[in-house]
Amino acid sequence: MWLQRRVTLRPYPRGFHLITREVLAALPELGQVGTGLLHVFIGHTSAALTVSENASPDVRRDFERYFNHAVPDGWPEFKHTLEGDDDMAAHIKASVLGSSLTLPVGAGRLVLGTWQGLYLCEHRDRGGARSLVLTLHGE
Amino acid sequence: MWLQRRVTLRPYPRGFHLITREVLAALPELGQVGTGLLHVFIGHTSAALTVSENASPDVRRDFERYFNHAVPDGWPEFKHTLEGDDDMAAHIKASVLGSSLTLPVGAGRLVLGTWQGLYLCEHRDRGGARSLVLTLHGE
Amino acid sequence: MWLQRRVTLRPYPRGFHLITREVLAALPELGQVGTGLLHVFIGHTSAALTVSENASPDVRRDFERYFNHAVPDGWPEFKHTLEGDDDMAAHIKASVLGSSLTLPVGAGRLVLGTWQGLYLCEHRDRGGARSLVLTLHGE
Repeated sequence: MWLQRRVTLRPYPRGFHLITREVLAALPELGQVGTGLLHVFIGHTSAALTVSENASPDVRRDFERYFNHAVPDGWPEFKHTLEGDDDMAAHIKASVLGSSLTLPVGAGRLVLGTWQGLYLCEHRDRGGARSLVLTLHGE
Repeated sequence: MWLQRRVTLRPYPRGFHLITREVLAALPELGQVGTGLLHVFIGHTSAALTVSENASPDVRRDFERYFNHAVPDGWPEFKHTLEGDDDMAAHIKASVLGSSLTLPVGAGRLVLGTWQGLYLCEHRDRGGARSLVLTLHGE
Repeated sequence: MWLQRRVTLRPYPRGFHLITREVLAALPELGQVGTGLLHVFIGHTSAALTVSENASPDVRRDFERYFNHAVPDGWPEFKHTLEGDDDMAAHIKASVLGSSLTLPVGAGRLVLGTWQGLYLCEHRDRGGARSLVLTLHGE
């Protein structure tokens, strides 16, 4: 069984955001998969996807703080500055965190640890509505 | 052919550790796959998986040193500090390195480069026994 | 449908390089896949793969500058120095960026965003010709 679906997320502000529910809501067919994999891909180069802690909003805030420190907006050595101070930093953060997730599916559910959730990592000040491609396959 | 299996690793100390043998030992069926993919997922947000050099213990020690420098325990700007100085740093390192690996399988074996091995990246001082979900599919 | 193919890239200098065309040229069968996934794996621990901006050469130059700053060659705390100043830094960069990509395939094409391309991240001064394993499956 193969299923591929494009999903447009609502616009999120810059930062890290839990999107587990939004992704699952777009895939009611997941309940029919006994064993499989879900691939989630983001079609942008200034936002990313990761798996992290699903409970504390402070964790998401600390991610944002840390990455702004590690990859500063407008770093003086950047040459690609035409699209704003946040643009080149966003490309780098997006590659560090990654543009896709592959997640196990078992007994009709995502097989995640108790504390795991899916994050959208929005690195632009005004990234707009981000587009995901969900690919589900299994049996 | 689809196969999904949960594996609990023995507890490892904080640091980077080769687990290629442990993963393969849990999957004798891999020998029957002509062409396929193995997905390895860690169900935790303070430990990660990566592929790197499989020979020198110094490489693993240098990984630990570097990441402790790049993402310091108890960084003063962290707000999520309830679970200890190593906790928030562990979440960030885990997202930078990633929670899953997808690896090619060919002729009944993992198709890795000569120098590649699978690493468990244990970022907590006392992370305990970590749980993996292995999903093998192929023909 | 499963297909697995080894591809040897031409040698690239140290830096970040667009390889989308080289990868696609090695996979004419991709045009026959209605829905599927392409897995691209690099069989080395001092080079990596990522998805980022496909237009501006400045972006690739800024990636190289940033990563050289974030993970310095010959960092004094590295012990694994036998293979040169660029070696240990290369292993770390490769793990941060990742050794594989999984990409959606739809209607016989890679389903990438308008601005997305595949990068080879060459972290050694003389990395030579890098070997990829492409695994395509779908229906």
